[in-house]
Amino acid sequence: MASFTLHGIPVSRGIAIGRAHKLAPAALDVKHYLVAEEHLEAEVSRLQQALAQVHKELQTLWNELPKDAPTELGAFIDVHALILSDPMISEAPLDIIRTRHYNAEWALLTQIDELSAQFDEIEDPYLRERKADIQQVAERVLKVLMGTAQILPATTGEDGFQAQMIIVAHDISPADMLQFRDRSFIGFVTDVGGQNSHTAIVARSLDIPAAVGMSGASTLIEQDDWLIIDGDAGVVIANPSALVLEQYRERQGAAARARKKLNKLKKTPAVTKDGVEIQLMANIELPDDCPAAMEAGANGVGLFRSEFLFMGRNSKIPSEDEQFEQYKRAVVAMKGRPVTIRTLDIGADKPLDQTEHTALNPALGLRAIRYCLAEPQIFLTQLRAILRASAFGKVRILIPMLAHAFEIDQSLAMIAQAKAELREQNVKFDDDVDVGAMIEIPAAALALPMFVKRMDFLSIGTNDLIQYTLAIDRVDYEVAHLYNPLHPAVLQLISMTIAAGHKAGIDVAVCGEMAGDVKLTRLLLGMGLREFSMHPAQLLSVKQEILNSDLALITPQTRKIMRSMEPSVIADAVEQLQLM
Amino acid sequence: MASFTLHGIPVSRGIAIGRAHKLAPAALDVKHYLVAEEHLEAEVSRLQQALAQVHKELQTLWNELPKDAPTELGAFIDVHALILSDPMISEAPLDIIRTRHYNAEWALLTQIDELSAQFDEIEDPYLRERKADIQQVAERVLKVLMGTAQILPATTGEDGFQAQMIIVAHDISPADMLQFRDRSFIGFVTDVGGQNSHTAIVARSLDIPAAVGMSGASTLIEQDDWLIIDGDAGVVIANPSALVLEQYRERQGAAARARKKLNKLKKTPAVTKDGVEIQLMANIELPDDCPAAMEAGANGVGLFRSEFLFMGRNSKIPSEDEQFEQYKRAVVAMKGRPVTIRTLDIGADKPLDQTEHTALNPALGLRAIRYCLAEPQIFLTQLRAILRASAFGKVRILIPMLAHAFEIDQSLAMIAQAKAELREQNVKFDDDVDVGAMIEIPAAALALPMFVKRMDFLSIGTNDLIQYTLAIDRVDYEVAHLYNPLHPAVLQLISMTIAAGHKAGIDVAVCGEMAGDVKLTRLLLGMGLREFSMHPAQLLSVKQEILNSDLALITPQTRKIMRSMEPSVIADAVEQLQLM
Repeated sequence: MASFTLHGIPVSRGIAIGRAHKLAPAALDVKHYLVAEEHLEAEVSRLQQALAQVHKELQTLWNELPKDAPTELGAFIDVHALILSDPMISEAPLDIIRTRHYNAEWALLTQIDELSAQFDEIEDPYLRERKADIQQVAERVLKVLMGTAQILPATTGEDGFQAQMIIVAHDISPADMLQFRDRSFIGFVTDVGGQNSHTAIVARSLDIPAAVGMSGASTLIEQDDWLIIDGDAGVVIANPSALVLEQYRERQGAAARARKKLNKLKKTPAVTKDGVEIQLMANIELPDDCPAAMEAGANGVGLFRSEFLFMGRNSKIPSEDEQFEQYKRAVVAMKGRPVTIRTLDIGADKPLDQTEHTALNPALGLRAIRYCLAEPQIFLTQLRAILRASAFGKVRILIPMLAHAFEIDQSLAMIAQAKAELREQNVKFDDDVDVGAMIEIPAAALALPMFVKRMDFLSIGTNDLIQYTLAIDRVDYEVAHLYNPLHPAVLQLISMTIAAGHKAGIDVAVCGEMAGDVKLTRLLLGMGLREFSMHPAQLLSVKQEILNSDLALITPQTRKIMRSMEPSVIADAVEQLQLM
Repeated sequence: MASFTLHGIPVSRGIAIGRAHKLAPAALDVKHYLVAEEHLEAEVSRLQQALAQVHKELQTLWNELPKDAPTELGAFIDVHALILSDPMISEAPLDIIRTRHYNAEWALLTQIDELSAQFDEIEDPYLRERKADIQQVAERVLKVLMGTAQILPATTGEDGFQAQMIIVAHDISPADMLQFRDRSFIGFVTDVGGQNSHTAIVARSLDIPAAVGMSGASTLIEQDDWLIIDGDAGVVIANPSALVLEQYRERQGAAARARKKLNKLKKTPAVTKDGVEIQLMANIELPDDCPAAMEAGANGVGLFRSEFLFMGRNSKIPSEDEQFEQYKRAVVAMKGRPVTIRTLDIGADKPLDQTEHTALNPALGLRAIRYCLAEPQIFLTQLRAILRASAFGKVRILIPMLAHAFEIDQSLAMIAQAKAELREQNVKFDDDVDVGAMIEIPAAALALPMFVKRMDFLSIGTNDLIQYTLAIDRVDYEVAHLYNPLHPAVLQLISMTIAAGHKAGIDVAVCGEMAGDVKLTRLLLGMGLREFSMHPAQLLSVKQEILNSDLALITPQTRKIMRSMEPSVIADAVEQLQLM
């Protein structure tokens, strides 16, 4: 067995050591042929039956979902069921059979290709990766159509290999994962995917190592190969030498001890050595994420990305009641801790809405608050739903992509209108709900007096802020190497925002990826940041870093860093900060 | 005759009053049919003959070009001839006939549609509008194919109408314009086009009013309708009342007197009332633009957009010698005044290069210096050509889209390498050529010490700087209303850049559109700007504004503006500045 090393994208931390268990390849060999006029309706009904069967399969999976399955799995099955009943899958391919005379498989694939192309246009990296869901749904249907539905053997682990099994596949669907639910798997390796593919999301929620985007892995790795996944580095070592194996076992042991130590911090307040308390908040996508946030000891939700509720619904916008129920669920789940709901952050790049104008540069187009102000009914509906949820706990409204004073004023006017409507209808809400602005456009960070005068709090979205400040799209691989959170310009904008907020006496949080990066925790503390919002899985590590930090030492060193304009000097100084 | 008013995009200033002369509509009614196998080669040769005939026509147009025709017209005919002989037009449609059996017209249109779609992907607004050139070339070929080539009557003006003729058309090709060369036309109105369509460029170079993007104009306006073009507002009034006509005649007279006064300023140095001399430079696209720059009294070329030389060449890059000849022509034409050549500012969005990766957000992708550093051979070739031209006059090298220290260092290393190669080969160049950076990314304006330490001069590209600072794509009509040069964040970045440059003792220019806007001249003077670069047509108006400005009054008022964060306050104060 040859030993080799593969490099991919690290999406879930930790080290896994086990045997490879390969899933059947995803690509199916589909036949293309034209169907005679008289057989068209038979072909249509063949596809309809396959769709119905998959629907039943998903239902069964859902009903049999074990109690301890990660909540994300259930959510993804829901999404798959939604996709399956959407006209884009349930009707459009039937039309293709009727109009183009394609066989059912070909018609389905044609439609999927078209949908995929549309997804590639989506700017938001999270939504863009939902393409994989559509493909996985299509694949299930194809398998049924072709009579190749994969029946797995009994699902109890029989030997030691499977008890320490690493799944290797082109891609892994949530249904794939559930088929293995009674076996223990300890890691994932896939050819495709990124930070937000659901393999990544589920791996993080299960807290098992995973490396994705590892092109060729499912071909190069053989069944039962010994594998090490280094989830921190995004590296997989196949058939390692005894020496290498030993080293990784040691690292694994050390990590396990560290994790154990971390887990003891769940109820410890995040206080620096010199006694300053720091708020650690969670970023969530669905109300189902709240238990994980509570479990990690979050002080609240710093960022509830409401887009997820709008996803996978074709162009249908969820009703006020549907939204209200979801927001309320999150508020109730957080048991009185604040829940910061960001209003809709999609727009010109909204998926599946083919009638919309496609922007040449969607990141610079009609997005987020710009879209909401252009579609006041959608915005008002969301604001009413959020306000109604505020009757059940502490809610904060967060507005993304603000840059102009009139946008702030118009947003506040819309909130006032939503309140007036609710008052009129005698619907309860918290009249003192705080309204904040995402600081994620350079113009906002450079015009802070405009914001602190009008807003109750600020939240720095470092991902977009870095992207616009450096004029690079970080999901564009050709320029991804230019993405640098330590660029002096970026550090200045963040530091200015924190200082301006505090001077004005309002809260400032960081909710971008920088907040969850322990290597940057001290730098942000030194800039004066007192509220961090991140994925719940990152919370305890950041807390530990805070517990070990002394602001009296960090602050002067950070000031020194902020005076420098030389990237190499800054990088060194930030490393120094780690050792203090 | 009904009176009505149309609104479009103002692209060339002034007022024109005259009769409508309509060109034949651009859309041709093309028949689609399939050609039998045995007639395919006859169809291919029919298309080839049509291509050859159009080639001859263009040659004739070029040969008969009157001496006083604007140089832009010749350049555009060149571009059309280049397009015509490019394989995408001269060969691809022949293949379509052979493989798909389409008739010649259909084959040509199919290919044009494909090319047009590619052009729509181009980020650079100037290059994107070159799509119209391809369409116009195709149209000429179609007219020949369909035997509808428009033969115009004798071209001497016969009556008063034609002596004061306003051309109204869907779009106007350079060939159309030349067909009217002996008649006098006093304005253009087109359904399509934008700031950089060649109707706009030629109108500005001829200094006649034009309004484009006036959708429906060619349908609504009838032959011989009386028209007023208000080129300042982008408005056309058809069949105006006597009263309205009288008002516009008065404005026209006043403008003519003002213009006459302006023309007397050509040799006057641009000095403020209190004796501070200001450098007024020209933005050019081709060496042919230099005479206009000299004529307007420019102190030099502040921005030579070298992309034009790379345009309309399919993916063929011009050789070092070709580039050198063009740069040298510009340097010689400017008679010792400095010529600032900006290195290639295209990239992932390079036209017609289908093999390249298409970025999702090209404005945030591999562009300009990023592209040049990724393609060192293209960059080195251009640097060598520029350096060679520096032996013939004063040349400055300007690098676009810099944001990181290592990009500056790598660019300087490339220039050093180009110099070393030339030295090795005993080729003459100016060893002291100044190297400057475009400040057009927020990160650059926020990290100026990084730049002033390494660079000889700075040039603020306000168009891109505004775009990135506000996170909006100004050519995206859905967000164009958010483009605001007076946003306090924008003003701060410009002011900081000017101050940092001067503190370090290096020149700072503004070369974006703000430099040519007389309403902003005093604001920029007040910020300390001493070098403006703009389209030659704007130069005298800006000079007049400078001659009437008193820095002692303007500077304190500008400081006051810079302290404000309220857009309405800023707008009012900038208007006040105008009255000082």
